Amino acid sequence: MRTGAWLIGARGSVAVTSMIGALAVRSGLTGPTGCVLESPALRDRVRPGIGDLVFGGHDVTSVPLDKKAAELAAAGVVPAAVASAVQAELTAIDQRLRPLPSAARQAETAAAISADLDAFRRRHDLERVVVINVSTTEPAPPPHPAHAELPALRATLDRPGNVLPPSALAAYAAFHAGCPYVDFTPSTGARLPALDALARERSLPYGGHDGKTGETLVKSVLAPMFAQRNLKVRTWSGVNLLGGGDGANLARPGANAAKAASKQRVLAETLGYAPQGETRIDYLEDLGDFKTAWDLVTFEGFLGTAMRMEFTWHGCDSALAAPLILDLARLTAAAHRLGRVGPLPELAFFFKDPLGEVPHGLAEQWQALCAFIDTLEPAR
Amino acid sequence: MRTGAWLIGARGSVAVTSMIGALAVRSGLTGPTGCVLESPALRDRVRPGIGDLVFGGHDVTSVPLDKKAAELAAAGVVPAAVASAVQAELTAIDQRLRPLPSAARQAETAAAISADLDAFRRRHDLERVVVINVSTTEPAPPPHPAHAELPALRATLDRPGNVLPPSALAAYAAFHAGCPYVDFTPSTGARLPALDALARERSLPYGGHDGKTGETLVKSVLAPMFAQRNLKVRTWSGVNLLGGGDGANLARPGANAAKAASKQRVLAETLGYAPQGETRIDYLEDLGDFKTAWDLVTFEGFLGTAMRMEFTWHGCDSALAAPLILDLARLTAAAHRLGRVGPLPELAFFFKDPLGEVPHGLAEQWQALCAFIDTLEPAR
Amino acid sequence: MRTGAWLIGARGSVAVTSMIGALAVRSGLTGPTGCVLESPALRDRVRPGIGDLVFGGHDVTSVPLDKKAAELAAAGVVPAAVASAVQAELTAIDQRLRPLPSAARQAETAAAISADLDAFRRRHDLERVVVINVSTTEPAPPPHPAHAELPALRATLDRPGNVLPPSALAAYAAFHAGCPYVDFTPSTGARLPALDALARERSLPYGGHDGKTGETLVKSVLAPMFAQRNLKVRTWSGVNLLGGGDGANLARPGANAAKAASKQRVLAETLGYAPQGETRIDYLEDLGDFKTAWDLVTFEGFLGTAMRMEFTWHGCDSALAAPLILDLARLTAAAHRLGRVGPLPELAFFFKDPLGEVPHGLAEQWQALCAFIDTLEPAR
Amino acid sequence: MRTGAWLIGARGSVAVTSMIGALAVRSGLTGPTGCVLESPALRDRVRPGIGDLVFGGHDVTSVPLDKKAAELAAAGVVPAAVASAVQAELTAIDQRLRPLPSAARQAETAAAISADLDAFRRRHDLERVVVINVSTTEPAPPPHPAHAELPALRATLDRPGNVLPPSALAAYAAFHAGCPYVDFTPSTGARLPALDALARERSLPYGGHDGKTGETLVKSVLAPMFAQRNLKVRTWSGVNLLGGGDGANLARPGANAAKAASKQRVLAETLGYAPQGETRIDYLEDLGDFKTAWDLVTFEGFLGTAMRMEFTWHGCDSALAAPLILDLARLTAAAHRLGRVGPLPELAFFFKDPLGEVPHGLAEQWQALCAFIDTLEPAR
Ligand SMILES: NC(=O)c1ccc[n+]([C@@H]2O[C@H](COP(=O)([O-])OP(=O)(O)OC[C@H]3O[C@@H](n4cnc5c(N)ncnc54)[C@H](O)[C@@H]3O)[C@@H](O)[C@H]2O)c1
Ligand SMILES: NC(=O)c1ccc[n+]([C@@H]2O[C@H](COP(=O)([O-])OP(=O)(O)OC[C@H]3O[C@@H](n4cnc5c(N)ncnc54)[C@H](O)[C@@H]3O)[C@@H](O)[C@H]2O)c1
Ligand SMILES: NC(=O)c1ccc[n+]([C@@H]2O[C@H](COP(=O)([O-])OP(=O)(O)OC[C@H]3O[C@@H](n4cnc5c(N)ncnc54)[C@H](O)[C@@H]3O)[C@@H](O)[C@H]2O)c1
Ligand SMILES: NC(=O)c1ccc[n+]([C@@H]2O[C@H](COP(=O)([O-])OP(=O)(O)OC[C@H]3O[C@@H](n4cnc5c(N)ncnc54)[C@H](O)[C@@H]3O)[C@@H](O)[C@H]2O)c1
Ligand code: NA
Ligand code: NA
Repeated sequence: MRTGAWLIGARGSVAVTSMIGALAVRSGLTGPTGCVLESPALRDRVRPGIGDLVFGGHDVTSVPLDKKAAELAAAGVVPAAVASAVQAELTAIDQRLRPLPSAARQAETAAAISADLDAFRRRHDLERVVVINVSTTEPAPPPHPAHAELPALRATLDRPGNVLPPSALAAYAAFHAGCPYVDFTPSTGARLPALDALARERSLPYGGHDGKTGETLVKSVLAPMFAQRNLKVRTWSGVNLLGGGDGANLARPGANAAKAASKQRVLAETLGYAPQGETRIDYLEDLGDFKTAWDLVTFEGFLGTAMRMEFTWHGCDSALAAPLILDLARLTAAAHRLGRVGPLPELAFFFKDPLGEVPHGLAEQWQALCAFIDTLEPAR
Repeated sequence: MRTGAWLIGARGSVAVTSMIGALAVRSGLTGPTGCVLESPALRDRVRPGIGDLVFGGHDVTSVPLDKKAAELAAAGVVPAAVASAVQAELTAIDQRLRPLPSAARQAETAAAISADLDAFRRRHDLERVVVINVSTTEPAPPPHPAHAELPALRATLDRPGNVLPPSALAAYAAFHAGCPYVDFTPSTGARLPALDALARERSLPYGGHDGKTGETLVKSVLAPMFAQRNLKVRTWSGVNLLGGGDGANLARPGANAAKAASKQRVLAETLGYAPQGETRIDYLEDLGDFKTAWDLVTFEGFLGTAMRMEFTWHGCDSALAAPLILDLARLTAAAHRLGRVGPLPELAFFFKDPLGEVPHGLAEQWQALCAFIDTLEPAR
Repeated sequence: MRTGAWLIGARGSVAVTSMIGALAVRSGLTGPTGCVLESPALRDRVRPGIGDLVFGGHDVTSVPLDKKAAELAAAGVVPAAVASAVQAELTAIDQRLRPLPSAARQAETAAAISADLDAFRRRHDLERVVVINVSTTEPAPPPHPAHAELPALRATLDRPGNVLPPSALAAYAAFHAGCPYVDFTPSTGARLPALDALARERSLPYGGHDGKTGETLVKSVLAPMFAQRNLKVRTWSGVNLLGGGDGANLARPGANAAKAASKQRVLAETLGYAPQGETRIDYLEDLGDFKTAWDLVTFEGFLGTAMRMEFTWHGCDSALAAPLILDLARLTAAAHRLGRVGPLPELAFFFKDPLGEVPHGLAEQWQALCAFIDTLEPAR
Repeated sequence: MRTGAWLIGARGSVAVTSMIGALAVRSGLTGPTGCVLESPALRDRVRPGIGDLVFGGHDVTSVPLDKKAAELAAAGVVPAAVASAVQAELTAIDQRLRPLPSAARQAETAAAISADLDAFRRRHDLERVVVINVSTTEPAPPPHPAHAELPALRATLDRPGNVLPPSALAAYAAFHAGCPYVDFTPSTGARLPALDALARERSLPYGGHDGKTGETLVKSVLAPMFAQRNLKVRTWSGVNLLGGGDGANLARPGANAAKAASKQRVLAETLGYAPQGETRIDYLEDLGDFKTAWDLVTFEGFLGTAMRMEFTWHGCDSALAAPLILDLARLTAAAHRLGRVGPLPELAFFFKDPLGEVPHGLAEQWQALCAFIDTLEPAR
């Protein structure tokens, strides 16, 4: 049951933390804290296991994995002792990473990506390869008619110019290579009708969007609480202060807007109305890989009484995201094995901006996930 | 479908706020914010409605309801305009309130309480009367063998001395009068084997304990979130700063201990282990009817990374509790009509320390509540 | 010692709260909480007293003062009982308020403003009139050469077009009428070389800018603490959530920028360097006249250890500002009597963006204020 | 100008962090962040410098310094690289540490302590030795008549039994050995009339009590702010959650009470009245050496408007305390050189519970410190 986990953005913080973590869990150096599929309720239910995952990936940078690991250790994201213990294995993964192909026409780039995926599968004798996008968040692309129809998309890709943003081109190439695709970022990914058609043509499942790791996770339990108690939320404002590579990118207006929108969606969906207020993202280099989010909720109770709640979340984004990458690789592989095709709304539990008409409350998403796992054959 | 809501502690903040609110909702002066049964998901599903409730009750003080209403308005718990608009109706309710009976033997006291309940039902031509305890929290009573067996309890009540604390005596009297009983406080109430036997003998349901209105409500959604994400909670500490009558009483060590214990139970039940930390309750007269709770949660993620969350809850306890009193009166009346006997674990959604082997996560409690409501005949 | 307090923006929240408060203190309905000159350390030191102030003012709206008072009471800014108790006196003040003059050329407008001031002084037999700007914050005006020289300014005012923003025109008119001028807003006010020249020509003092009532007040004590302890502040980020009329205006980018800049200045001035981070202002109508500010400070201690502090400030801006208006009217009148000319740096204690080369730490500003008061003749 | 810094509790967190830090600063491995005497305002003003300090001390445990340093590094209090870089020098200090003497009579114990101090001074050719208590906080001792008079104390020390708690015995021995004494803990130390008499007899200065490193530091700037603005503080409640060795000890009721009292004193002293509320200290082993304090301040403004402020302080107590130990050793040595005798109220800036009738606001304490430094001869 050897399964490939091919990461787009394989030299980034989330990717490398997930690799270090998988290696450390596998060798018993650490427990699987943060891995949803290793919680008491779900342990031993889903194959492949963490130990079955074989890592590969694309990136546009060539910073060696051990250098990145040292940076993560210095930043307090991974323990220094763990980073050195897995160094040899990390170097082995480094051999399997490939520079992101780039050709004159996007069709050729896609073919080169697919070829890398095929080679990875064959060389490592993998049952299947799941492609997961953990690369830098892109701005939303300009709309294009070829996004709507697969034949038109194919024709356009053969011409010069970039009709697809990188995340969508990666999804296109993954599907061509027979690989399920998951987008952990708010980027476009497989979220275009033409790509959905391709996934269905190749009988492949896909998942996304935008890993839910902090403030939005908390919102997804608090907002249903207010709704169920029939308390009227008047305002909900949030500020996210973060450093790190992701932070630097999100400080760019395009990416910031994409992210902030996906962060407020949970409120309208679970409350049934949109309270006043916005979510802001501010980049502060000095905060490093840790993020502080502060939210203020003002609400109204019986007879209009004004009340309020505020929370501060101080989390390490990469440490929160990395174990979910392992969960998503395993769940998507299992869905593929099961013959699932098209979007995987059962994975909504993991995402800020989930695919499909799904509940946005975490509790219902949890139940949908558990129900999905119940449909899998017993793991042993 | 006129239904009696007989409140023990009928001149207290929670009781009077619930009366004012019911009158205001009924006359269209205000909406039913905070009433769970009036949320979009449950509206028009449960009979009796708010308009069917007829209030009565016992108290040990004789402060007039309009005086209490003026105090609540001055404290910002109810709008002054609403308090004056319902003044006449409040005075009408005042006529129906009775001083808490007190006789030489508890059997006689109970008989007098039952007689008050019977008289209330007959005089107002009520289909049924639900007794709800919203009086001052008692210290836990010393254990007594007669708590275990109904015949022994009956015999002991006939002798001098107090074998039952007031809340349990009220439950005893309610059951004798054929009334379901709900305890909104952490006091003993119906939670004794002998009283359970009596409820079953009289085919009556009962509910409790300790209304969940603030910090514990938040805990009951956050703790499942940490569990589902397999994040390890290391410490969870809380402090509750409150004024008001309830606060003054909770500052007394016995009552404080009862309350603090019922506040931490949700953690062990939903996490599967008890993190370090305590919940403290401090009384500060100057805070009035508003309560501020602060909680610090420290937790561990992937590879042991240390993270933390804190929240501040600033709520008006009486405004949060009062609409739940209306919900509980209606649901318990409906359960009685349906022939339910014994504890009502489906009401766990409302309580910090719910009866029965029930989930402590709010989401599952919400589903149990909805499932229960589905068993009721359509409201119209 | 009857002294005029002429408010530009006399029908706004700050202005009307200061009038209500002065009337209430005068008649013994309330104590002078929030009035710096009435604190135990300074009581009875400065003449005129609160009772000596006679209110007048300009505004562009004609909303009656009693209507505004009712709004402030409904919003919880002033007690309803106080608002009604002073209604008659408020109506008397209303008679003295004048619509803001507006003529074809700014010289004529200024002359009309001066005439209003003269008439007010004469009619009420006032020793002097202090003009205080509490009107809506303006965007910064485009630079103009005539701002630098009084003769050029005079010439330009005689021509069509608006060389001065309203706050500066008010200062010009005040000086012409022999009145000291204080700007409680971040607007231009007297802060132009040509106006400084005019003030000196007429031997008048002036003060400003931007009343310090919340987050910046706290910063002005915390930042010196970090500096004195030689702790290195890495980041200082703030978010201000506010409703009310001032909030609506500050949501406009120009005004917001002026305010946010004046809010960060204290950090660079007291720390000696500018930490990373910004201060944001967000408008949320539903918050009403109360403002919530949240600040996160990350700092570094011995051996580089990372630490953090956060604070939440929940204040009523008008209630914080209004008593300072009374203080400023009294202090500026006393400075005028004393013969002070030009900027009054001793008032830095009251301002976010004080005039002159002054300390920005509150403690030193307090000492400067006390030293100034020591130079005044004994009050009685 | 070689000066001894003899630490009582020399193997504890504060002591060892101060040693590591001094070594690291001396060798240029790190800057002097957190050292007050190295801030831009005071740099190069006080001799001895950090490089002139020679460490020695007593402790009741024999845990080697390098083991303690490794623990501090693992806990994130000192960087691991710094801890290893100074290992050799730390081992050298370890040779100079002595087990706390213990004899049948306290007079003999004191003589043994004095002998250790004499030997240290001679062996290392030190100009003077400052004794600083950073050992475990003691419960307050029972009152004893011999505390009041030096002759009675001498007589009692010669008899069996413990008339002095360890901190006071250390002060007695220090004075006998001609050493100034500083108490960084809330323990008794030199704070007894008999010991004051001894200090005067020997012409020695002494300082204390209880280093001000977190919540109280913040209080000492916020409380004056409320006072100067004439805002009425209604309640001020604090909770301190801490782990570490100090935390474990403070969880013991006696020590906790001593500490909590010294933490509230600043409020009454700076506000002029004691607001409602308490400061609680809770021990949570899992928090390690970091402490989280949360404070809620409710206050009243103009016309009685209710407002509130809360802050969270997340600091590393040892990292905050250690640089102050260096400051105190230097300042006390300088005071001794200057011929100062008796309590040193100028050091109030450093203490929660300062000696003498001194201001409790940080700003005034800062000025007193600066004024004291001005009396010292120029450092170079
Ligand atoms: N960490 C979280 O909690 C979290 C949550 C939700 C979403 N995300 C998203 O996950 C992504 C990764 O976050 P991160 O913190 O690891 O960021 P990062 O900046 O550390 O890593 C991103 C990596 O992507 C690479 N990259 C950029 N463009 C690429 C391309 N076109 N093809 C291949 N590789 C490319 C970069 O070189 C870099 O190595 C971001 O988009 C982020 O928004 C993270
Ligand atoms: N408000 C909340 O959010 C909340 C939540 C959970 C539980 N509770 C519980 O609800 C109860 C009521 O709270 P409150 O704020 O209204 O308190 P309160 O002090 O305002 O009212 C209690 C009333 O009970 C009366 N009383 C005392 N002993 C009595 C007795 N033996 N028989 C009859 N009446 C008696 C008192 O005279 C008073 O009128 C408390 O026990 C409280 O702990 C409240
Ligand atoms: N409240 C505080 O804590 C605080 C602190 C610092 C500064 N300020 C400043 O004080 C000012 C007043 O605040 P507020 O809350 O009372 O605002 P507000 O909106 O309630 O009142 C402003 C008033 O000014 C009037 N106005 C507008 N333009 C005018 C003009 N050209 N001439 C005369 N009147 C004019 C408006 O009609 C209104 O009545 C604002 O500029 C605000 O930024 C307030
Ligand atoms: N860290 C801070 O911010 C701070 C602030 C104010 C006061 N303090 C006080 O400083 C002291 C030290 O704190 P810490 O965190 O280093 O504690 P710690 O527990 O790490 O160290 C205390 C040391 O004192 C030793 N000791 C105990 N009794 C002794 C005795 N009679 N004689 C000699 N040594 C003895 C212990 O063996 C231990 O090595 C405590 O009293 C604490 O309350 C610390
Ligand atoms: Na907070
Ligand atoms: Na907070």
